[in-house]
Amino acid sequence: MATQRLLVIGGDAAGMSAASQARRLKGPDELEIVAFERGHFSSYSACGIPYWVGGKVPKRDDLIARTPTEHRERDIDLRMRTEVMEIDVAGARVRARDLQTGAEEWTGYDKLVLATGARPVRPPLPGIDAPGVHGVQTLDDGQALLDTLSRTEDGVEGRARGRRAVVVGAGYIGVEMAEALLNRGYEVTVLHRGRQPMSTLDPDMGRLVHEAMDGLGITTVADAEVVEILTGDDGRASAVATKDARYPADVVVLGIGVEPETTLARAAGLPLGEHGGLLTDLAMRVRGHGNIWAGGDCVEVLDLVSGRERHIPLGTHANKHGQIIGSNAGGGYGAFPGVVGTAVSKVCDLEIARTGLREKEARAVGLQYVTATIESTNSAGYYPGAASMTVKMLAERRTGRLLGVQIVGREGSAKRVDIAAVALTAQMTVEQMTALDLGYAPPFSPVWDPILVAARKAAKAVRDAGA
Amino acid sequence: MATQRLLVIGGDAAGMSAASQARRLKGPDELEIVAFERGHFSSYSACGIPYWVGGKVPKRDDLIARTPTEHRERDIDLRMRTEVMEIDVAGARVRARDLQTGAEEWTGYDKLVLATGARPVRPPLPGIDAPGVHGVQTLDDGQALLDTLSRTEDGVEGRARGRRAVVVGAGYIGVEMAEALLNRGYEVTVLHRGRQPMSTLDPDMGRLVHEAMDGLGITTVADAEVVEILTGDDGRASAVATKDARYPADVVVLGIGVEPETTLARAAGLPLGEHGGLLTDLAMRVRGHGNIWAGGDCVEVLDLVSGRERHIPLGTHANKHGQIIGSNAGGGYGAFPGVVGTAVSKVCDLEIARTGLREKEARAVGLQYVTATIESTNSAGYYPGAASMTVKMLAERRTGRLLGVQIVGREGSAKRVDIAAVALTAQMTVEQMTALDLGYAPPFSPVWDPILVAARKAAKAVRDAGA
Repeated sequence: MATQRLLVIGGDAAGMSAASQARRLKGPDELEIVAFERGHFSSYSACGIPYWVGGKVPKRDDLIARTPTEHRERDIDLRMRTEVMEIDVAGARVRARDLQTGAEEWTGYDKLVLATGARPVRPPLPGIDAPGVHGVQTLDDGQALLDTLSRTEDGVEGRARGRRAVVVGAGYIGVEMAEALLNRGYEVTVLHRGRQPMSTLDPDMGRLVHEAMDGLGITTVADAEVVEILTGDDGRASAVATKDARYPADVVVLGIGVEPETTLARAAGLPLGEHGGLLTDLAMRVRGHGNIWAGGDCVEVLDLVSGRERHIPLGTHANKHGQIIGSNAGGGYGAFPGVVGTAVSKVCDLEIARTGLREKEARAVGLQYVTATIESTNSAGYYPGAASMTVKMLAERRTGRLLGVQIVGREGSAKRVDIAAVALTAQMTVEQMTALDLGYAPPFSPVWDPILVAARKAAKAVRDAGA
Repeated sequence: MATQRLLVIGGDAAGMSAASQARRLKGPDELEIVAFERGHFSSYSACGIPYWVGGKVPKRDDLIARTPTEHRERDIDLRMRTEVMEIDVAGARVRARDLQTGAEEWTGYDKLVLATGARPVRPPLPGIDAPGVHGVQTLDDGQALLDTLSRTEDGVEGRARGRRAVVVGAGYIGVEMAEALLNRGYEVTVLHRGRQPMSTLDPDMGRLVHEAMDGLGITTVADAEVVEILTGDDGRASAVATKDARYPADVVVLGIGVEPETTLARAAGLPLGEHGGLLTDLAMRVRGHGNIWAGGDCVEVLDLVSGRERHIPLGTHANKHGQIIGSNAGGGYGAFPGVVGTAVSKVCDLEIARTGLREKEARAVGLQYVTATIESTNSAGYYPGAASMTVKMLAERRTGRLLGVQIVGREGSAKRVDIAAVALTAQMTVEQMTALDLGYAPPFSPVWDPILVAARKAAKAVRDAGA
């Protein structure tokens, strides 16, 4: 049998996991693997960038799981600073450009993996491209931000007393970057749409995040519509203007969200969903294409709770996708059943978590539901350091099926959402959840775990709602 | 309709939860509620005793969730220091003795709740009843131990430099008491059966606990069979003798385990299981008795994984039982489906957790299985403070159904077992678990949560084991 060639577009989590897993299953005699990455880094943790910027993770290379050299030692021909310009599906080949020399060449494939990731949303505002305005999607972005920060700060222990940072957007990236900049000594202002930060939560839960951010000294501005980034005499960003006000800024960070990077796929006529991501089947094959797979931040995933496709850029999905793609492309088998929408984050010691559907999302797909919100503690109330945890639970009317959980609280709050993630996957009712045998000891939980307390209240709400 | 009378025997978690829930559903005009408690305290957290003894919880009353007075304010006639001596099932009445006056009287019931708890195993060894030998089952026990400790210690900040404590048994209570005594400054020796401490874990996982206890300066002695408690001239315990050696002791703590307190039930002819606990139906009614319920540490519970009855004395089950009993006795409805055997604990900052079956338990019920053990970290490896976590997973041969999980590690280890507890309840396979959408962010988890890593390895072991 002749050697086949697997091409991978994108050298981060999904792409290189796919390449590595395929290599585990097939040796170089059977399968040649070539991967293209347009940036300077491979296989890194983008989710770790806020902690590197904030100084918790000392150096950039700590975020790199596997270097290009390590990949090459595993017989993966990873070509860095090489951008794929075009996919010719009919001809089963791609055109790639060496970004240093400008040279281009076509490379044929038997199997193709698209792992082109996501790009930060960058609204076309005046000044958005000025120096001092930073996204934080890639390691290159992070390095550029750090370069701006170091020229802004006064050199004393790298701190930035009296300097001002404006973060646009208050989703996960926004609040994590607010913490990072606060940790560096900045006065931080977060401008966000909507009434509350963390729009991935319902507003009543987002309010708790808002209050905690207030307590940390982070200024949040609700319903803020940014209209312009103002620049100073040196051409660098100096302030962010909304419709209502101006916020002086030594540095501006964009945390507005990301969208699937599917320019190549669109040009090649591959199927995209309503969020702009590639559509795949359960084996992560691009729909209608038996020899093209896609995974990571460039695809849409099936939300098992709503039955809809969503775009959820998250390293943990990207790694699972890569593993499954590599298994299938390497002659093994794997399938990705979908997600339930779990996400966790923190701002300093406030932990934030969600899984399943928010109220708005439930309504949007026609689900009727009841809600229950409870306040409890992360350990037995008498245990030293016991601290608050608020849990909100959504259950379907009539059936009582769990629809979603949101948690905001101190240590031990975030990962408790995993209990609900498994229950969602298993399609449990909140009544069934009241009997869950969860770990109990005073340092770890009240005798009724907060999740059980919420489930009891939600089960009662289901009964009270009647038919 | 005439007022009915509900009698409750036992004034702690199960009994008073039942009384309180029944009261919520039925007012005093419909239901008279009388509860008997032979001790000095009601509704307290026995699980908190080690932390009170160790000084983390400042005072005894912190452990009391609801005082007798508070219960009486809710129209529950709680009679403290009153011991039920006999149950006359045919006559539907109980004989109770006022322990202060010695007076006895019969009280009739329409409905009866047995919540008599458990008693520490106290082998009939010479010296076992000497002053200075302590169980830690009740608040009274805890107070007696603290009295011994305060006469032992030298008064300087209540510390006990150079004093020696011997703990017999290395289950949850044993290791928690070892920590408590270490925190007070004792030199602690733990004598235990078997090769490793924490016999609720497989020995390979118990070894990790052993190593951690070594590191903390706690001496553990394996395969130790205690034959005698030696006493000094003052009649107080002075050493513990095993077959092989003598261990000097200023205080001896028994953590050998507990057994159901079912003396009354046995005498009344109520059905007991092979572990000596009361047998109930799903509504927590004593089998064969429509108007008698039992719950908490005096009953056996159905283990949903093995299909067998087990005795699992744990506050979280007792509270659930009480809630369900109170609902049913109050004319509502509730059922307890069973447990999966979840338990969590810690020794200083080492967290210990299990759910489902250990190898020995799986073999005992005829299950064939594969195991997978992995070492990972509690946060992204590059996140500051990332620390080790070891996860062992058992899956059934052929079906791949999850059978059990054990976790030993640092912060964030214990409550991760809840993920497995829910998966066990839902009868998931380890292959299904590999796709679980668990919370990921660098401060909380590697991009592959340790549970996912273990599930992947276990799924591979199932495949490799073939038919």
